[in-house]
Amino acid sequence: MRALISVSDKSGVVNFAKELVKLGYEIISTGGTYSKLKNEGVAVIEANEVTKFPECFEGRVKTLNPYIHGGILHRRDKQSHLDQAKELGVEGIDLVCVNLYPFKATIEKTDDFEEIIENIDIGGPAMVRSAAKNFDSVIIVTDVADYDLVLNNLKNNTNTVEFRRDLMIKAYEHTASYDSMIANYMNKRFNNGLGAKQFIVGSKVFDTRYGENPHQKGALYEFESQFSNKFKIVKGEPSFNNMGDISGAARIAASFGKDKAVCIVKHGNPCGFAIKDTLLDSYVEALKCDPVSAFGGVVAVNGTVDRTLAEKMNEIFLEVVFAADFTADAVEVFENKKRIKLFSQGTEYLELANDSFDFKRVDGGFVYQEADKVADDEVRNSKLMSKRAASEQEVKDMEIAYKIASLTKSNCVVYVKNSAMVAVGMGMTSRVDASKAALRKAEDMGLDVNGAVLASEAFFPFRDSIDEAQKAGVKCVIEPGGSIRDDEIIEAANEYGMALYFSGIRHFLH
Amino acid sequence: MRALISVSDKSGVVNFAKELVKLGYEIISTGGTYSKLKNEGVAVIEANEVTKFPECFEGRVKTLNPYIHGGILHRRDKQSHLDQAKELGVEGIDLVCVNLYPFKATIEKTDDFEEIIENIDIGGPAMVRSAAKNFDSVIIVTDVADYDLVLNNLKNNTNTVEFRRDLMIKAYEHTASYDSMIANYMNKRFNNGLGAKQFIVGSKVFDTRYGENPHQKGALYEFESQFSNKFKIVKGEPSFNNMGDISGAARIAASFGKDKAVCIVKHGNPCGFAIKDTLLDSYVEALKCDPVSAFGGVVAVNGTVDRTLAEKMNEIFLEVVFAADFTADAVEVFENKKRIKLFSQGTEYLELANDSFDFKRVDGGFVYQEADKVADDEVRNSKLMSKRAASEQEVKDMEIAYKIASLTKSNCVVYVKNSAMVAVGMGMTSRVDASKAALRKAEDMGLDVNGAVLASEAFFPFRDSIDEAQKAGVKCVIEPGGSIRDDEIIEAANEYGMALYFSGIRHFLH
Repeated sequence: MRALISVSDKSGVVNFAKELVKLGYEIISTGGTYSKLKNEGVAVIEANEVTKFPECFEGRVKTLNPYIHGGILHRRDKQSHLDQAKELGVEGIDLVCVNLYPFKATIEKTDDFEEIIENIDIGGPAMVRSAAKNFDSVIIVTDVADYDLVLNNLKNNTNTVEFRRDLMIKAYEHTASYDSMIANYMNKRFNNGLGAKQFIVGSKVFDTRYGENPHQKGALYEFESQFSNKFKIVKGEPSFNNMGDISGAARIAASFGKDKAVCIVKHGNPCGFAIKDTLLDSYVEALKCDPVSAFGGVVAVNGTVDRTLAEKMNEIFLEVVFAADFTADAVEVFENKKRIKLFSQGTEYLELANDSFDFKRVDGGFVYQEADKVADDEVRNSKLMSKRAASEQEVKDMEIAYKIASLTKSNCVVYVKNSAMVAVGMGMTSRVDASKAALRKAEDMGLDVNGAVLASEAFFPFRDSIDEAQKAGVKCVIEPGGSIRDDEIIEAANEYGMALYFSGIRHFLH
Repeated sequence: MRALISVSDKSGVVNFAKELVKLGYEIISTGGTYSKLKNEGVAVIEANEVTKFPECFEGRVKTLNPYIHGGILHRRDKQSHLDQAKELGVEGIDLVCVNLYPFKATIEKTDDFEEIIENIDIGGPAMVRSAAKNFDSVIIVTDVADYDLVLNNLKNNTNTVEFRRDLMIKAYEHTASYDSMIANYMNKRFNNGLGAKQFIVGSKVFDTRYGENPHQKGALYEFESQFSNKFKIVKGEPSFNNMGDISGAARIAASFGKDKAVCIVKHGNPCGFAIKDTLLDSYVEALKCDPVSAFGGVVAVNGTVDRTLAEKMNEIFLEVVFAADFTADAVEVFENKKRIKLFSQGTEYLELANDSFDFKRVDGGFVYQEADKVADDEVRNSKLMSKRAASEQEVKDMEIAYKIASLTKSNCVVYVKNSAMVAVGMGMTSRVDASKAALRKAEDMGLDVNGAVLASEAFFPFRDSIDEAQKAGVKCVIEPGGSIRDDEIIEAANEYGMALYFSGIRHFLH
């Protein structure tokens, strides 16, 4: 039996090779891997002894050779293949262990195009793909983390076809990811990130018990290691829908730096938000906005949940608390509550992945775009359109309302007073309906909107929403502006003695 | 100069080769391509003359050879590479024309795993990747559609590095797509479609002027050829947000077979829907539900828009009409309306892609799931929970309301009467708020909800929404059931003499 080992990441490879030798494998290797194994005392054959051809062109051609690929690819279950192999002097290669030139590490550390091109591996993927194709007879190892598993299966005679098939799938995932990364990089560099093909590649974090509904299967996939590094399951099992809500709530709660922000989300949209001096106060205020919707909701906490906050949260049924962290005694508080789920990042504050791109499913495909971001100075740079200017507290409230509006489904209107959301209308087909629904709800809840600021993520097409806001006592409005009826909006604001600001920047979110 | 041609799809290849010969290229080829070119009188060298090694293992190893890959990969700008090439007898290959074994066609026509594995191309991708890496000196052609372009650039001395770079990007897109397809296929076959890696690969249909907002760049990507084959731009330029709305509207309008369905969507949610005897009547009824939201909306028409319907539509400002087709005189009607956009499929009825999977962006990754579908018999198979049963018209209305509810953002409630939607609440954090907003709106619009049926995509947690429905005159309700308070819901229905059905199947959509 022969094993070909050619790895860019050399961790664990010496031990792996030694164990293979013990199991009776001859080791074939190239370049740096060959030197390393030889230096560590592993009996190893240099690839060019097999290929009968020198490594050439500074390593560009090493293993692209029929003695290598014939050795991997010929079928052991066909006598004609075996005969031909013998006739041509092609000896079988039964295990291929390859990991690829570090294209990703290269593009992260340099813009030098020559260096980047040189780090596109050619020989490696060819061997990986050959060995995977012939998984019926060949073991393909592409992941350092699989060395022990492979050795165990060899030692225990459990090197089954199913095991090799799993490795085959992993191998094609590996080469597909590699070329997807190259194509996306090139398109980002030369085609504004919107090339002829777009590759969205995710690594599975976990299966969810089901998808959006019980009859659908589902799973969570990550781009980098946002979840596997920074999403800790403290209690309970995150569902498919939880992940959407957690994302929505965290994006809002993490939007205000180190502020003690708490956001409550239901079905993807915020139904409570506040920033107060303590997380406890923030939670208490956030809950006031819509305690009915908060029932069974998802709460994101930009900080550590302590015992007191946990006890307060425990008073109602929350489905999920997602926090930067939990103290041990806070976790204890929740222990007897059967249904609540706790997830943390093990950080001081919530940390977002903040991917630079965004996409949305449409029937038959997807739309893909640069991600939307609200710059921190958008509110302060907004243009005063009315006679009255905002007070300092109103500016603070505008900053909160404006950011929340950018992260709430369109059409939306967000009302904030003293750093707490007091009303919100979202996801509706008409802006004035969202305004009316929000204000009626606030009235039902007995919330005082008097003195609140109002933010809209897109312009008001008519003055009707301003009229509604005035009735509720709103004194300050921020919106992008840009309607053909902006004059009427400005007139309404002045009529009511409101402060009105135009940011000039729309933040639709659908 | 030498060109290596090895193609699975042989269309156009003879002419391409002949033109290359005229331009002074020697042609190297393999297997079937070699035979075809030779038979057509092209001067062609068989690859094994170059490789000094026979084609072996039933074609599994043909070009995986240093004379081929060295010929492609050695750098022409480095004297050391040129010297080594000379020394080793490696001659340059300056153009590589390869397209791959038809993996996709194979999996579409057979489940035979041996045949499928045999159709994983190994030599092809290796050559494509080699040539792409050395695009500085080598032209890589992977698309039959590029033959003329390549020939023109060669003839006109415009074979620039930028041109070759574009072909390089296309080449890596090609290999990335190929291996993504293999990995996704294997995961579908062996891992329920939820493998360790998920590859979502789209081909660009067009750039949109901007993304969801003007400061974001965006584009539409398709999976198969849903858009390039079946999305015709009759008038105007589709925006990023249009594509989402068109998808939402079409999914609803196409849900009822050949019925003359019309759906109006704004910000992704329906604000009007009807099925009447003619498309004109359907549109007129659909518009009544919420003419305010319909302003600037997107209308999907399950059939052909004729002159009369066009004239009716022209009375208000619609942003988009998406129809199976338009008559020529209908298009004429819209000609003078500057802002309206018209798109069609050139079909008799709207046709969906109906992808089998679905995904949704979360911060740091995405959730992926099987697509949700409403089976045609879900309503008829629902369980009667109340004393009163639905009338035949009510059953029809339930079927409409139930399907619309499954395609409207949660939480939603849909009210349908005589095959037309009369009220809808959507995208809200609480179900009763959605109910209230819907009914208040209907009241404002002067719409008569009396006798309507009500569908909810998920269970009613409390009887409050039933109480609201009763006040408005609703006589029939369908919902999945499954609340711990189902008894209260049933009691309320019986108290009010309503018909109540439980489908047992939830259809959340977020």
